[in-house]
Amino acid sequence: MSSAPNPHLPTQLGQSLAWVGAGIDQLFDELLAVPDDSRARLIQAMRHAAIGGGKRLRPLLVCASGDLFGVSRAASLQAGLAVECIHVHSLIHDDLPCMDDDDLRRGKPTVHVAFDESTAILAGDSLLALAFEILAGASIHPIADVCAELVRDLAFAAGASGMAGGQMLDLLDDDGPSDIEAIARLQRLKTGALIAWCVEAGAILGGATAEQRTSLRGYAQNLGLAFQIADDLLDEDGDPATVGKRLRKDAGRGKETFVSLLGKDRARQQAEMLVDQAIDHLRSFGESSSLLAEIARFSIDRDR
Amino acid sequence: MSSAPNPHLPTQLGQSLAWVGAGIDQLFDELLAVPDDSRARLIQAMRHAAIGGGKRLRPLLVCASGDLFGVSRAASLQAGLAVECIHVHSLIHDDLPCMDDDDLRRGKPTVHVAFDESTAILAGDSLLALAFEILAGASIHPIADVCAELVRDLAFAAGASGMAGGQMLDLLDDDGPSDIEAIARLQRLKTGALIAWCVEAGAILGGATAEQRTSLRGYAQNLGLAFQIADDLLDEDGDPATVGKRLRKDAGRGKETFVSLLGKDRARQQAEMLVDQAIDHLRSFGESSSLLAEIARFSIDRDR
Repeated sequence: MSSAPNPHLPTQLGQSLAWVGAGIDQLFDELLAVPDDSRARLIQAMRHAAIGGGKRLRPLLVCASGDLFGVSRAASLQAGLAVECIHVHSLIHDDLPCMDDDDLRRGKPTVHVAFDESTAILAGDSLLALAFEILAGASIHPIADVCAELVRDLAFAAGASGMAGGQMLDLLDDDGPSDIEAIARLQRLKTGALIAWCVEAGAILGGATAEQRTSLRGYAQNLGLAFQIADDLLDEDGDPATVGKRLRKDAGRGKETFVSLLGKDRARQQAEMLVDQAIDHLRSFGESSSLLAEIARFSIDRDR
Repeated sequence: MSSAPNPHLPTQLGQSLAWVGAGIDQLFDELLAVPDDSRARLIQAMRHAAIGGGKRLRPLLVCASGDLFGVSRAASLQAGLAVECIHVHSLIHDDLPCMDDDDLRRGKPTVHVAFDESTAILAGDSLLALAFEILAGASIHPIADVCAELVRDLAFAAGASGMAGGQMLDLLDDDGPSDIEAIARLQRLKTGALIAWCVEAGAILGGATAEQRTSLRGYAQNLGLAFQIADDLLDEDGDPATVGKRLRKDAGRGKETFVSLLGKDRARQQAEMLVDQAIDHLRSFGESSSLLAEIARFSIDRDR
């Protein structure tokens, strides 16, 4: 369970992961109450994908960024819930047979296996819509303009110029050649845009200055890339039972990754360098950014 | 083409349909400029589904409702573009093989036929996200609170408690028994929620009173039901070349509809009664609501 404290983590990070994990599960549980009619199947599919498991890294990033500016944890958690809806939406759709065709996710059967394809598509669609309902509905906005900015940026990060565009590239790249630049570009769209939004959201909610936002953007860009390299390393060396999904897929498809192109050692070094650079961007925030720094280290030092 | 004037329509309605149709096509064309990289395929799939064809009834409803309160047509058209994105998203996903398995839509091959299934899923996802980017990004909001209300309500209408929930019921009902109440309930979710949002959006943008909004809600409820009955009648009697999609599907599946349960004559009478009731709700608005009244009549008197 994501909410179980891990004794190997720094106390602050371990506590925050546990708090955010439990909070997100509870909010999903309340929001996705199963109705007493035929829509029950749809809500159950959403619950299956959304509740339990998952590192909740994205909501944690919103909280850690918001902490810098005194944003209430309740407000950050709502924004984090919205971005987690989008993340889970993308997992459900990416796992579909016509996409990556995965049958295991977070240690459970994927939604189209546990239910069926049409239910999986509708559950993903519903979670995407729910993200915006949460973001616009929650009383988390110190000023109303903030809502428009958060919604617009999150929609951009989720759509054709962000996550969905990245997944399109990923599917097309199945047969094409790849170099480091192309893989980095794909990653910036497919996972980077959403991670950047998380860090940005805390800054927007907290009324950060333009300079502070630039620093945080630098942090997020480096973090996103490091996170992806760590994912590629886990795909090579991870334990499927711990990671909770099918591994060694990229190699099976003859698909280039950071690891296949750089080799494990250089990929690992590259990820460590990126984490150092990410933390460098936090310097102006001093001690208050220690949780963000711990998250960056954790991003490449995890077993799932 | 949706923008071609139809000589059989009242002048006001014909002109408005043509204006809205041309405006929506032009905005989509600008917004969905094809990039010079591999995302081109995704944007082209979105263009294929979004541009050309379609009655643009939903954007027209936003405009006609906004007209009552002096909302600028530019602002109404932006909100209309957002809801049209959601509508097109739902058509792409509903047409997929695992859903209704349709190969013709608006007289063209459906997106998964013209491209492939994964591209269709991503194009639908991207259009759903785009709706909220438009709604939150456009400078259409007289006051910022309006953005939050429009976004929240549209997300609700698109998700598990609205359109997606309705499609789930529709898929499950393939094998179950149905009565008029169950069909009306399904329609309220599947198509009614989005139609209600359109009429509501004009009122929200125009700062309507609670009383005015109640009247418009009554109009929208009756209109939505009448529209669906007209769709069922078209499915029985329409010309596939004109309607632009495969017809007689419901009968082929042994699926109950308003028409199968009531018979054509009573269904037609019921639709006419609903249109009269819809127009009744407009009484307090006087002459300024004549376009909304014409839309209600058109909703059951169309050949596609």
